[in-house]
Amino acid sequence: MFVVEGNKIIRELQDSDYHIQEIYTTDPELLQTSDFEVIGINDRELRKISFLQHPKDSLAVCQIPEMQHDKESDFQLILDGIQDPGNLGTIIRLADWFGIEKIICSEDTADLYNPKVIQASMGSFLRVQVVYTQLEEFMKNSANTNIGTDMEGENIYDFEFPDRINLILGNEGNGMRDATVAALDQKITVPRFGNLKSTESLNVSVAGAIILGQIFGNRKKKPS
Amino acid sequence: MFVVEGNKIIRELQDSDYHIQEIYTTDPELLQTSDFEVIGINDRELRKISFLQHPKDSLAVCQIPEMQHDKESDFQLILDGIQDPGNLGTIIRLADWFGIEKIICSEDTADLYNPKVIQASMGSFLRVQVVYTQLEEFMKNSANTNIGTDMEGENIYDFEFPDRINLILGNEGNGMRDATVAALDQKITVPRFGNLKSTESLNVSVAGAIILGQIFGNRKKKPS
Repeated sequence: MFVVEGNKIIRELQDSDYHIQEIYTTDPELLQTSDFEVIGINDRELRKISFLQHPKDSLAVCQIPEMQHDKESDFQLILDGIQDPGNLGTIIRLADWFGIEKIICSEDTADLYNPKVIQASMGSFLRVQVVYTQLEEFMKNSANTNIGTDMEGENIYDFEFPDRINLILGNEGNGMRDATVAALDQKITVPRFGNLKSTESLNVSVAGAIILGQIFGNRKKKPS
Repeated sequence: MFVVEGNKIIRELQDSDYHIQEIYTTDPELLQTSDFEVIGINDRELRKISFLQHPKDSLAVCQIPEMQHDKESDFQLILDGIQDPGNLGTIIRLADWFGIEKIICSEDTADLYNPKVIQASMGSFLRVQVVYTQLEEFMKNSANTNIGTDMEGENIYDFEFPDRINLILGNEGNGMRDATVAALDQKITVPRFGNLKSTESLNVSVAGAIILGQIFGNRKKKPS
């Protein structure tokens, strides 16, 4: 089971294939309109069961669906050891924005059904499929070009991205594992424009956003 | 006064113009190399004074410098009511990456010296000047073109950005205030590529990253 909080996401859940077990709510309006088992509670009770610092109006308990191994998509994100639940949620939301249907995670990546991931994804987990698997195996068997960031890679603002891509994003502190780097077909770099002496890196979801904007923005410009 | 935690950022602080009042540390190496007043403490004491869930090795207490009103930069970020300290920190780090020297904040934007902002900025607050002021006044008096996001704006992947820009980013939930929108010279849109029926928006730092990548990446491509 996993937990989803807030009427907005819960309404989207009701329209999805997810199976809701029960909903606890302080909001009579949701009580009236819902087709699911709904239990009225007060604010004090909600504060006790909520995972949020500032609880919303409702909390739904849902079944974790069986992990599906569908066919590949033309564009997939691959996450190698992303640890922070907020980062994973933000990346799912980012994938949803760009219409990416599938995220493949290493087995040690943060759990999709961690309440912090679900909340940070803002409902985007309903539209983006997230699967966990052995990455090197997956990358080797994929028909897509495996592209990851590296200090010595091609500048993303010059590089001609191919049509079918697996974009790999690595761990917040350590980047990709050596075995993942070895399975790359192409290395790219997000160039820094200022303060060249700084050793700071970009947040992983922010780096992903810059790369995706570059890939999809340039595709749009191509004559169709 | 404000607090900075972790040897890595504190070492950068020591090389900056910031005035450190005192350093509390569990790390003898830092004790030996530092020129500042340094107080040795144990892990238990550090846990008591730290603002972090997982305290690092050291904590520095610094003086908040006088806010400076320098001359304008060619490229400035303007933040209208960013509330989340993590978002503000991530935006400062993003500005540092692109060499943006100045961020102008509305007076109700999160406080730079909030420990969560300082930590999320990862030391980038040392290189990016953050000032708080009345935005409409500032925007009207600025020589830069005031550009902000809007559902009805120009597509960022087609738009020719001018040379001197103030890029305005709005509040996480409500966007820019009406008075800020009224002071814009140009509206732009970050187009969505998938799931057009979704009502989800992008995280503000992620949206900022996509726009900055587009502006600076295209500048790089221009013949110089």
